[in-house]
Amino acid sequence: MISKQQVKFVKSLKLKKYRKKAESFLVEGAKNVIELLNSDFVIQHLYLTDKFLQEYPDVRKSFSSYEICTEKELVDLGTFQSNEYALAVAGMKPHKTNLSDNNLIIALDDVSDPGNLGTIIRIADWYGIEDIVASKDTADFYNPKVINASMGSFTRVDVHYMDLDQFLNQNQTHAVYGAYLEGENVHESKLVSPAILVMGNESKGIGEQLKSHVNHKITIPRYGKAESLNVAISTAIICDNFRRKDPKK
Amino acid sequence: MISKQQVKFVKSLKLKKYRKKAESFLVEGAKNVIELLNSDFVIQHLYLTDKFLQEYPDVRKSFSSYEICTEKELVDLGTFQSNEYALAVAGMKPHKTNLSDNNLIIALDDVSDPGNLGTIIRIADWYGIEDIVASKDTADFYNPKVINASMGSFTRVDVHYMDLDQFLNQNQTHAVYGAYLEGENVHESKLVSPAILVMGNESKGIGEQLKSHVNHKITIPRYGKAESLNVAISTAIICDNFRRKDPKK
Repeated sequence: MISKQQVKFVKSLKLKKYRKKAESFLVEGAKNVIELLNSDFVIQHLYLTDKFLQEYPDVRKSFSSYEICTEKELVDLGTFQSNEYALAVAGMKPHKTNLSDNNLIIALDDVSDPGNLGTIIRIADWYGIEDIVASKDTADFYNPKVINASMGSFTRVDVHYMDLDQFLNQNQTHAVYGAYLEGENVHESKLVSPAILVMGNESKGIGEQLKSHVNHKITIPRYGKAESLNVAISTAIICDNFRRKDPKK
Repeated sequence: MISKQQVKFVKSLKLKKYRKKAESFLVEGAKNVIELLNSDFVIQHLYLTDKFLQEYPDVRKSFSSYEICTEKELVDLGTFQSNEYALAVAGMKPHKTNLSDNNLIIALDDVSDPGNLGTIIRIADWYGIEDIVASKDTADFYNPKVINASMGSFTRVDVHYMDLDQFLNQNQTHAVYGAYLEGENVHESKLVSPAILVMGNESKGIGEQLKSHVNHKITIPRYGKAESLNVAISTAIICDNFRRKDPKK
């Protein structure tokens, strides 16, 4: 039985101001919770169903401190419409100031939809990109929709919020690619590394103030009539083009 | 002022059984409604805000029959959390029995999330793919979430619901590619056309009964640690690989 006070606390984490105050965030669903348990994030609360413990019996050995819940309680605590498995509260990590030694970095200029950010984190993790640099108006990394869409990849990819103009000024050793609707065909571009790939806001694209930093405007060639592609879809396609030309290992 | 009866009718279209009965469906937001107005779908009802008419004055010339609404009314009628522009009710089209003469067809085996189907329709439209063949358990084309995620591409891409086993049996002149987690590296595959690309269900992948039809198992190479990619993301990346090798024109 979860106390009323605890219910109130967990539910409060749906909002950024309470997450910030508590330095805690929500993780929901079997896949995301399993990845969380295998990461170095600190688990503050863990709510599991019997079904979860039956399917993942090892969790019982590694974690002694959890509460057994019903699906109904999990749905009430979190943001999912159904959740048969698990919900956790974890502590935020201190902001890292240094980026890893990457040959490809993604820079997001005001990508505002949390689902898009979460999906981009998952894509980065697939393509071995450890760092995403994001403008301050990009969706919040700890938003439950971001965590959920990342499908566990939030444990392996860091999102650094900073002034992109300043960041690009300080990283002039990197080639800077930007996704535009009218740039060079990415299939024909010589994609060199180390590189920074700048992706713009869902409706406005890359901001004017960053244009001067982009030395290579690239475009995914279109063969049909759709006006545009979603920003997460475009990021995936461009990363695939980068990796094809420049396998990491 | 919209009549109570009309409000009831429009709202009912959120559910498949009422859409089927009325043979009508909902289209929401400026981009989707603009594309609808430029298509050969029959418009049954059109609800526009003053803001929409200011931004798209030509609509007033081409369509005389519409009702002016407030944003609040549009939100009440439809599925969006905010809608400053437009909502329409359109008539379904009769099912086409023939596919266009395509060099690439996408086949979806129980892709159940409407957002994924809508995004795949948009991707197909970008890559010049006119036909998607879908198993009967794939999300409903006329679901408002499908229409909305397609960003207008529902007007140009046909989704044919049929038995995939039978369809693949009848199309043996096409090479059949299937996306698996352990197949040939798509960067190194010789992608020939005409081809059918089979994409599987979000959690189960491609069904056992279709495996015998797939003559080429392909995989997007992974450079990091994410366990998988979303089905719409994978579809986009594989289509990009096909078009790179085999430009349509």
